[in-house]
Amino acid sequence: MIGISKQRQKYIQSLHIKKYRQQYGAFLVEGRKSIEELLAVSAESKISFEIEHLFLTETAVQLLGATAEKAELCTEKDLAKVSFYKTNTFGLAVVRMPNPPALAFGKNTWLVAVDGIKDPGNLGTIVRTADWYGIKQVWCSEDTVDFYSPKVIASTMGSFTRIAVSYVDLSQELEKAGQPVYGAFLGGENVHSVKFPESGILLIGSESHGISPEISEKVNHRITIPQFGRAESLNAGIATAVLLDNLRRNP
Amino acid sequence: MIGISKQRQKYIQSLHIKKYRQQYGAFLVEGRKSIEELLAVSAESKISFEIEHLFLTETAVQLLGATAEKAELCTEKDLAKVSFYKTNTFGLAVVRMPNPPALAFGKNTWLVAVDGIKDPGNLGTIVRTADWYGIKQVWCSEDTVDFYSPKVIASTMGSFTRIAVSYVDLSQELEKAGQPVYGAFLGGENVHSVKFPESGILLIGSESHGISPEISEKVNHRITIPQFGRAESLNAGIATAVLLDNLRRNP
Repeated sequence: MIGISKQRQKYIQSLHIKKYRQQYGAFLVEGRKSIEELLAVSAESKISFEIEHLFLTETAVQLLGATAEKAELCTEKDLAKVSFYKTNTFGLAVVRMPNPPALAFGKNTWLVAVDGIKDPGNLGTIVRTADWYGIKQVWCSEDTVDFYSPKVIASTMGSFTRIAVSYVDLSQELEKAGQPVYGAFLGGENVHSVKFPESGILLIGSESHGISPEISEKVNHRITIPQFGRAESLNAGIATAVLLDNLRRNP
Repeated sequence: MIGISKQRQKYIQSLHIKKYRQQYGAFLVEGRKSIEELLAVSAESKISFEIEHLFLTETAVQLLGATAEKAELCTEKDLAKVSFYKTNTFGLAVVRMPNPPALAFGKNTWLVAVDGIKDPGNLGTIVRTADWYGIKQVWCSEDTVDFYSPKVIASTMGSFTRIAVSYVDLSQELEKAGQPVYGAFLGGENVHSVKFPESGILLIGSESHGISPEISEKVNHRITIPQFGRAESLNAGIATAVLLDNLRRNP
């Protein structure tokens, strides 16, 4: 059969919504870059993804070749009915949420923790940037936007396949980790002169609310990106990138 | 009169579109943060803005106090008819495009140049980040997205009032400037070990196309953000932030 059955259409549409993603334990991966990265996840990868359905247009099947052998064919019209995005000319996968392994801290192991990030694009950019800087795991406070929303997945540009993201009681986990916690604050130590240890946790709050008071208590080192001009703030993705760059230059 | 006349509604709606912004030499500023920054521009500022119209809701007038004395009152319903954004409960200004002064290079003077940035959010973030790092001027290649589009203005978070942005023949201007040009490339010198001079030009290309071949010829130093993980690229805003941070730590 070519196309997407009515029943599956309903199922896929429901996965636009967090409640149903959680109920079914599944999420959507849309568009070329994300699907390519999904299919390229190797058997040795630490995070494994079980693909429930993979719908691809003919063009996509041709582009992907052998990696697309399990795909079901569909048209752009079929995709338009179920996609989160207005334009999706490539395909869509329904994927089981992975159970990422917890990280053992060790030499050169840094973890990023985010507190109350509400903007999907910001969370996606943070995960992608973390991936660039060799971070393997991101902890999110429970009030952070859902990582499995189509917008976040798309804005990770494929990094969702490599970063273990989990929602945790941040206050508890920071306490339990027994690692130094470096938190981004205004008025902390200038990050240009911070000597970072070999392992630890970098904690980022939202641009509008910063790190919440309860979580702030777990921070051992308050660090700040020095300001040379007059913009009042940096967005959370930008701040994460600059801090990780400082951290990596400074073993 | 309370409200926005039909004729002005038509004029404001036309400014959603680049062609008419250029024809009338005017652009829109929407929402609280941007309008507050616009009204806070002092007489001594190097960039001055002539406000043609300022429409504010009653709430906005109360919040702004004396700075809003020249505003015309309107309702949220009026704003909904003319705003670029779906939700605008604050107000809208029609502003003449400024003629920003050209920069004299000197001690500690760095300029950011962007080549072919198409995404409005990226350009806005670049300008805002440049402002954080004390950059005063941004040159855009002629095929860069229009700085005066409502999306770019909004995503500068008020920095549009402080940064002189101009569209130039980049190849020609880089040549004429007689300054060292540092361009972001893959496979260049690791930015962590670059010694930046006191003045120069930082050149950023688009994430998908990089710096165009013609402009590349004007680059004296190819620099690269070192990659520690597996994401394939960083977005242009993130790259600008990390490079400016390296530049400022390294006088």
